[in-house]
Amino acid sequence: MSPKITTELLKQLRQVMKSPKYVQEPVQAYIVPSGDAHQSEYIAPCDCRRAFISGFDGSAGTAIVTEQHAAMWTDGRYFLQAAHQMDNNWTLMKLGLKDTPTQEDWLVSVLPEGSKVGVDPFIIPADQWKRMSKALRSAGHDLVPVKENLIDTIWTDRPQRPCKPLITLDLSYTGVTWRDKIVALRSKMAERKVPWFVVTALDEVAWLFNLRGSDVEYNPVFFAYAVIGMNTIRLFIDGDRMMDPAVREHLQLDSTLEPEFKIQVMPYGSILSELQAVGASLSPKEKVWISDKASYALTEAVPKAYRYLTPYTPICIAKAVKNASETEGMRRAHIKDAVALCELFNWLEKEVPKGTVTEIIAADKAEEFRSQQKDFVELSFATISSTGPNGAIIHYKPVPETNRTLSVNEIYLLDSGAQYRDGTTDVTRTMHFGTPSAYEKECFTYVLKGHIAVSAAIFPNGTKGHLLDSFARSALWDCGLDYLHGTGHGVGSFLNVHEGPCGISYKTFADEPLEAGMIVSDEPGYYEDGSFGIRIENVVLVIPAETKYNFKNRGSLTFEPLTLVPIQTKMIDVNLLTQKECNWVNDYHQKCREVIGAELERQGRHEALQWLIRETEPLIRVQ
Amino acid sequence: MSPKITTELLKQLRQVMKSPKYVQEPVQAYIVPSGDAHQSEYIAPCDCRRAFISGFDGSAGTAIVTEQHAAMWTDGRYFLQAAHQMDNNWTLMKLGLKDTPTQEDWLVSVLPEGSKVGVDPFIIPADQWKRMSKALRSAGHDLVPVKENLIDTIWTDRPQRPCKPLITLDLSYTGVTWRDKIVALRSKMAERKVPWFVVTALDEVAWLFNLRGSDVEYNPVFFAYAVIGMNTIRLFIDGDRMMDPAVREHLQLDSTLEPEFKIQVMPYGSILSELQAVGASLSPKEKVWISDKASYALTEAVPKAYRYLTPYTPICIAKAVKNASETEGMRRAHIKDAVALCELFNWLEKEVPKGTVTEIIAADKAEEFRSQQKDFVELSFATISSTGPNGAIIHYKPVPETNRTLSVNEIYLLDSGAQYRDGTTDVTRTMHFGTPSAYEKECFTYVLKGHIAVSAAIFPNGTKGHLLDSFARSALWDCGLDYLHGTGHGVGSFLNVHEGPCGISYKTFADEPLEAGMIVSDEPGYYEDGSFGIRIENVVLVIPAETKYNFKNRGSLTFEPLTLVPIQTKMIDVNLLTQKECNWVNDYHQKCREVIGAELERQGRHEALQWLIRETEPLIRVQ
Repeated sequence: MSPKITTELLKQLRQVMKSPKYVQEPVQAYIVPSGDAHQSEYIAPCDCRRAFISGFDGSAGTAIVTEQHAAMWTDGRYFLQAAHQMDNNWTLMKLGLKDTPTQEDWLVSVLPEGSKVGVDPFIIPADQWKRMSKALRSAGHDLVPVKENLIDTIWTDRPQRPCKPLITLDLSYTGVTWRDKIVALRSKMAERKVPWFVVTALDEVAWLFNLRGSDVEYNPVFFAYAVIGMNTIRLFIDGDRMMDPAVREHLQLDSTLEPEFKIQVMPYGSILSELQAVGASLSPKEKVWISDKASYALTEAVPKAYRYLTPYTPICIAKAVKNASETEGMRRAHIKDAVALCELFNWLEKEVPKGTVTEIIAADKAEEFRSQQKDFVELSFATISSTGPNGAIIHYKPVPETNRTLSVNEIYLLDSGAQYRDGTTDVTRTMHFGTPSAYEKECFTYVLKGHIAVSAAIFPNGTKGHLLDSFARSALWDCGLDYLHGTGHGVGSFLNVHEGPCGISYKTFADEPLEAGMIVSDEPGYYEDGSFGIRIENVVLVIPAETKYNFKNRGSLTFEPLTLVPIQTKMIDVNLLTQKECNWVNDYHQKCREVIGAELERQGRHEALQWLIRETEPLIRVQ
Repeated sequence: MSPKITTELLKQLRQVMKSPKYVQEPVQAYIVPSGDAHQSEYIAPCDCRRAFISGFDGSAGTAIVTEQHAAMWTDGRYFLQAAHQMDNNWTLMKLGLKDTPTQEDWLVSVLPEGSKVGVDPFIIPADQWKRMSKALRSAGHDLVPVKENLIDTIWTDRPQRPCKPLITLDLSYTGVTWRDKIVALRSKMAERKVPWFVVTALDEVAWLFNLRGSDVEYNPVFFAYAVIGMNTIRLFIDGDRMMDPAVREHLQLDSTLEPEFKIQVMPYGSILSELQAVGASLSPKEKVWISDKASYALTEAVPKAYRYLTPYTPICIAKAVKNASETEGMRRAHIKDAVALCELFNWLEKEVPKGTVTEIIAADKAEEFRSQQKDFVELSFATISSTGPNGAIIHYKPVPETNRTLSVNEIYLLDSGAQYRDGTTDVTRTMHFGTPSAYEKECFTYVLKGHIAVSAAIFPNGTKGHLLDSFARSALWDCGLDYLHGTGHGVGSFLNVHEGPCGISYKTFADEPLEAGMIVSDEPGYYEDGSFGIRIENVVLVIPAETKYNFKNRGSLTFEPLTLVPIQTKMIDVNLLTQKECNWVNDYHQKCREVIGAELERQGRHEALQWLIRETEPLIRVQ
């Protein structure tokens, strides 16, 4: 991976930062956030502005360019990748390390007095705007919205915004009709006495209308906004996809409906003016509910006194708690996914010793096996197929320049997943196709102990996920080891593989309490720069737990693994496990054998079945 | 404990809330916070306004009185106590429960439109003012400062503010002179380019000047403020205590000193006008550093543009990391404290079966044994001496109305501590003087497992205490049990028994990372309302941990117990412990036997020594 040469681009950007054609007054710094106008994590090529200007294309990062400096903030998952992809024009700011300045502090330290800092108001979330604006103002600078995106002005071959056909999901997948979702949303609005609600996140629009799209790779969403009133529904969406008869019928666009369920379809680009019109029409005490992470531009469209901002929308919270149809769909998706991975690992075991399998070939093969499964749509994220030192690059994606050949001498880490019509998967397994060293086994076993500690944890109703994060690290901490990423994230149901409002992380973000029906990942790891990476990830469902007692009738919760793929026992130092942990592994493998074994049998995949049976032999503790 | 009858008082308060003599405009609600003008947790009798108006005298709680309602917010430690102490005029608002409204939400729900909510600006912290003011304003109400404290106007026999003699601490106790502390503080001020610093917390004033007082029971502090400039030191303090020759010499008041170390002594009451004068004298870019928890009145004394607010002051952080002299002092204090408790428990074992020992007698006896120890000053908090159902009242203090007799049939919980000139102690032991039931032993053992999980935890440098809280709960959670308080708090060195900025709690407050030298408590519990209470508390020192590996050279930390008092093995169900936990108990008891045994020997306390040897017999796991 050679870095992108950005000298010329930065020169051009610094020119437009001073050009009266684009800015009212020159800006001394320009912020290029990661997201799109919907604050998506995964974005369409036309929105990859930060990657365009810097070369760094990880999923999280913010670039700031001043007249003399260019700096990139990203987190521990991407330290190595960003360092590889960016040239010497850029300074890497490692988030989470003690001495890394915040963007605001850094700006204040480098800017000349009375500077203007520009940003696209459609890209920056309102909460970030507020924080940054306040910090800059108190240091004598100004954060200013720059209407035209300055990256776009220098990006000559910028791709078009995608506008692909939609997929309609019937009740067997969603469990609830879009009409009932609107009814439930309006009841939440009535509870808070807020007559308007703006849907800005793409996965929230998709979930609300039981529609899916493919405008963004890996995330089955489409570019749209919605504004829901107590009696009106406005959907802002472009292209002729609303001409599709299936979509028209699904949304009942041509039926005679009660007016409060009649969807008005409007152009995507008209959201700002329509929202301004709603804002202007409000009577006192009427408010518009909008996420505090919505763009500054949309937030500003509603006068301040009429805004009702919350960190999580009622859709975000409702979407996180999967209903029975969604849970069953997720179970089916994970069974199919496990079948594909059993095939893959069986194949790898035979092929790797020949020295012909590269990281890219392995990733392609994983996709091939997944695509053979029913209702497969696409991958749910770029496959992390990494061997040896590449495994230590936490969100590595193999490209020809870095592509290593799998061997019997190195650890192989595969973090992959897919979108099926019935669910979304995300699973990481770490394998050795030869003989792992004692040290590799030791580290793997600590990671496994952490994985089990979370997966088997029992905790009271109302517990927030961040309270479980240390369970995943305890065994590593005991030996002075750790990993620089969170332990788990919410997973959508045939939706984004990363979703809020819950998660398991040491970062104290405003996570919502875990509830039965929520689905998160459990993925501790250990990474040794330049040597290897280990991660063990299951997707797990929050379920009620039976306990001996029931303090204050609060009830307890625990996790049920949805992912049912063997954890390589060859990598386990069984004598580092407690009997309880050993039993957990054996019970888990027993369930893999039963559930996935039956499906492999049904699909006539006998060789993979033999592999599964071999890989799920019970562990025996010698101690 | 019969509730205080508050009908007449509330009537009087509601009258003054409307009286032009005290308020410019009538206030429809009046807030009575817990603290004093220094936001102290423990307060002098003259500041116990919330207890006066409500009857509830726990250490934490906020009262709000409106024309029709009176409500009290307090946390899980005090639910039972508050319910017992308050009459029917009061509604108890249980903090931490899901359905409990915030003070702001409750006010908005009960107030007529456009109400004024009054509060004493010297008592409410600036951060609380800001949050509450904002919430009230957005609902059309106003938070207004009421200069005269309205409680004081109806409190006819309100005690005088205490003004007791000071204690000077020499270098052997403090490790650092006050001059060197001023130098270090000024270097922190220079780092942040802030030329003024206001010391508002009583323990910070005491720590900075190496002085102690006795104005507040249990906390060896005195009423004072300080304002430190780069070249000036102003100490605001009343009374003739500055006439004491020892104090004058300690502070070098009569020496010819470099001007920047010359202390100007000013009246306590002149802080507001002096601070206003400092604020008015500032040139642009000069700021005044003040805690964001300082009173609204003092914060407002400095114009907004000149305020530099932080959640923790540099004194708070420096004070938390004990130096070698302080650590050695704390060790000595804990050894003496353990001697007193060995005497007490030996005495209780003999006396309880006679049926003559009440909770109050036991508490008094504990104080008697402590007072026999060298450098004993006073208790560090009101002794929680509770048996049977009283043990479930988390911060219970025995009074004649509730005083139970200890017996061989009930669990006895003693949470007590003392101030010695060389250190502050805080220890809880839970004992049974007969035969505990299997259920009591089971619960005790879960609590012990939690205690050990924290005490033995190894974690990376930079870890915040809240990440360790779940370790203390895990064994309880597994059985559906829990406790409704945090796991640990910072402990001062011959200072407040509760101090910031670190702690171990599920509440995500802004705790500072743990550092070697910090001292916290480790005190999980389990409480069964109406039956019993269990808590096991040690004070522990953060120390560097030796680990097998050292990820990114971060270094690791762990805890060393300073408290060395046997944990009653009779209460332990040894078969619920792992071998590792069992070893921890045995190692701990071995250390108690060696260290405290030697001191008991030295003090000639042979009977207590025999008791100690008996109580520290090693556990043996049968499994």
